[in-house]
Amino acid sequence: MKKQNQKSDEILNKRRQLGPFPMEKLKRVEQPTTQITESVQRIDKREGVGERAERGDFGPVVARELERDVEKYPLSAVVRNMVYYLGPRAEGKVAPSKAPIPEDPEILSRHIKSLGYFLRADIVGICRVPAYAVYSHDEKGNPIELKHKFAIIVVVDQDYDTFLGSNGSDWISGSQSYRSYSATSFIASLIADYIRKLGYPARAHFCQNYQVAITPLLLWAGIGEMCRVGVALNPFLGVRFKAAAITTDLPLVPDGPIDFGLQEFCRVCKKCAVECPSRAISMGDKVMYNGYKSWRTDIPQCAKFRFANPNGSSCGRCIKVCPWNKPSGWTHDVVRWSVRNLPALDSLIVKMDDIWGYGKQDTAYKWWFDLEEVDGVLQVPKRGAERLYKETDVGLRE
Amino acid sequence: MKKQNQKSDEILNKRRQLGPFPMEKLKRVEQPTTQITESVQRIDKREGVGERAERGDFGPVVARELERDVEKYPLSAVVRNMVYYLGPRAEGKVAPSKAPIPEDPEILSRHIKSLGYFLRADIVGICRVPAYAVYSHDEKGNPIELKHKFAIIVVVDQDYDTFLGSNGSDWISGSQSYRSYSATSFIASLIADYIRKLGYPARAHFCQNYQVAITPLLLWAGIGEMCRVGVALNPFLGVRFKAAAITTDLPLVPDGPIDFGLQEFCRVCKKCAVECPSRAISMGDKVMYNGYKSWRTDIPQCAKFRFANPNGSSCGRCIKVCPWNKPSGWTHDVVRWSVRNLPALDSLIVKMDDIWGYGKQDTAYKWWFDLEEVDGVLQVPKRGAERLYKETDVGLRE
Repeated sequence: MKKQNQKSDEILNKRRQLGPFPMEKLKRVEQPTTQITESVQRIDKREGVGERAERGDFGPVVARELERDVEKYPLSAVVRNMVYYLGPRAEGKVAPSKAPIPEDPEILSRHIKSLGYFLRADIVGICRVPAYAVYSHDEKGNPIELKHKFAIIVVVDQDYDTFLGSNGSDWISGSQSYRSYSATSFIASLIADYIRKLGYPARAHFCQNYQVAITPLLLWAGIGEMCRVGVALNPFLGVRFKAAAITTDLPLVPDGPIDFGLQEFCRVCKKCAVECPSRAISMGDKVMYNGYKSWRTDIPQCAKFRFANPNGSSCGRCIKVCPWNKPSGWTHDVVRWSVRNLPALDSLIVKMDDIWGYGKQDTAYKWWFDLEEVDGVLQVPKRGAERLYKETDVGLRE
Repeated sequence: MKKQNQKSDEILNKRRQLGPFPMEKLKRVEQPTTQITESVQRIDKREGVGERAERGDFGPVVARELERDVEKYPLSAVVRNMVYYLGPRAEGKVAPSKAPIPEDPEILSRHIKSLGYFLRADIVGICRVPAYAVYSHDEKGNPIELKHKFAIIVVVDQDYDTFLGSNGSDWISGSQSYRSYSATSFIASLIADYIRKLGYPARAHFCQNYQVAITPLLLWAGIGEMCRVGVALNPFLGVRFKAAAITTDLPLVPDGPIDFGLQEFCRVCKKCAVECPSRAISMGDKVMYNGYKSWRTDIPQCAKFRFANPNGSSCGRCIKVCPWNKPSGWTHDVVRWSVRNLPALDSLIVKMDDIWGYGKQDTAYKWWFDLEEVDGVLQVPKRGAERLYKETDVGLRE
């Protein structure tokens, strides 16, 4: 088979940063900084909070509100509908013969990452698929069999400016999630389709059709470290992103986990826990749960608030107030360097974050309208605390 | 009807630049810098070069190659298929009642532009729809009736780095076009859907389903000036972009045409004309054609080469070599200032562009593989000049 791209050494050496963020410069380590024990189990999607809410596990009000938590805000409905529309693009026929491309996993990894950036991903990473990252059953109880060796993870930012204008739990919140869910669905569908055209199996996993849990993939691909919120946190985006994955047998080189000093930072920070409107995020120490040793978020409590949020659509307050939710800039590069090298300064950095006013809402950035669909008609939302909080058992702070 | 966003003055004053490029700082003028005369006519899509090529107007080889010009490269096939897949999202049902949002066109314009940027457009602009911008008939000969007052134009970059790695007319070329066609289709579909949910009519116009000609909209919305290539050129992207539009009756404020000194620059530059592999771009002066006074590109000649390009998929050599094809950076800001204020330096700038090596290919940026699908199987392309150029009447230079 004829080979091409003979000058691969040149190519591999010259371009050290492929995307908008210097992911290539992060310190790589052997294991994720969060301990994942042998007791880690595959997750059954029927035990997901959405499924539990739908079954009424969180009471009738949450079950009712779940049905409209996204649909009630017109923009979040629009971007979510797009995700559903892209659903059928996740899978497809594999070309019967393999393309005449190099079989060198390093060249292929670089190719696929460059493709992801070309298709406008903010970050692309690669890992092996650990068996425990594959869900055991789908929402309907069908067993999931997925044998692909590698996962390509595609990340899209949720937009810093919009978070500036929001308080994190208002009407734009669901749209911020689905902005990135829809963009990653779009990109992952295209990459999976392309790999299949090259003659290799590939499936896109995105919002509403994941067969893999994204968090362990983000840890193993070195896109983030596990944070106090209970998800992966990236040093350049914080938790202000969503991710999709493409699983495949195209031979690739895993990126490896990263260590940028987050474990000590989250230990002292606690800003997300203090600010969480549903008090779902732990103020305490790491504990063992689901096979991970990490901070334990009360996921049902978080979900109940998000699904039934009477003063908004969904919630991302932890994303907004996190000190890692920052725009680009050299001052933030200095802080990242400090967290990595001078952990003793972490608590000072957290204090400075408050003093500088980060995490506050700046209404000059509020470009959207507050709207709520009620019985098919868009209305200006009434402040819903009295209307709805009383109906739920969600213990909310004022 | 209850109103919101009372602090609109504050909002309108504080954020002067909404997107990644300082479009708001450009000098706005009354009329496009290209004269559009009263003799301008609506265009019949049946007279488009694709339709003419399909009918055999450019000979049997071009007609045959047109069928595979995109499909023959796997990535361009993938991104174009996505555009087709999004086709049904262009139109939809308008909500029966209008949302309780401000009716101030200035606030709505800012809202819609911010939405476009939130959905990851690189540039968003607004204009009235001139009657002549609406196609007279579609490809099948059906008359087009489109009465929407306003157009929102959504622009996505074709990726500077990828153009660095290409020679402009090789295998990645079609993918570069469809990268931006697919992204703008995606964004325009979402915006149209959203406006309809607010209770206003809206239709998305994107690659394969345009009912409006994009170039006059780009001129009137001040996204670009007409350039020697015969399309709109933006001061920050050059011609390295594709655009989609949303037409609507949502009340908006048109942005107005821009003048950044391009007419004099293109008069002296001619780099695109010199480098065009099919010699389709004029080396001469402006002439009157189709109601515009501008440089006349031999569009059939360009199309014949693009459709039948034996050494690549499509062509964008003019995009690559254009001195306006630059990354961000203050040095380029200085040059932009000079073109605007010191036109006498234009020819020196063009010379410097050559001396600095802009427009050359840097293979370190070539991340894709050269591949060609022949009879359903991907192959390493054979250099096709002998094979194909002889079969066509396209007068090619060596």
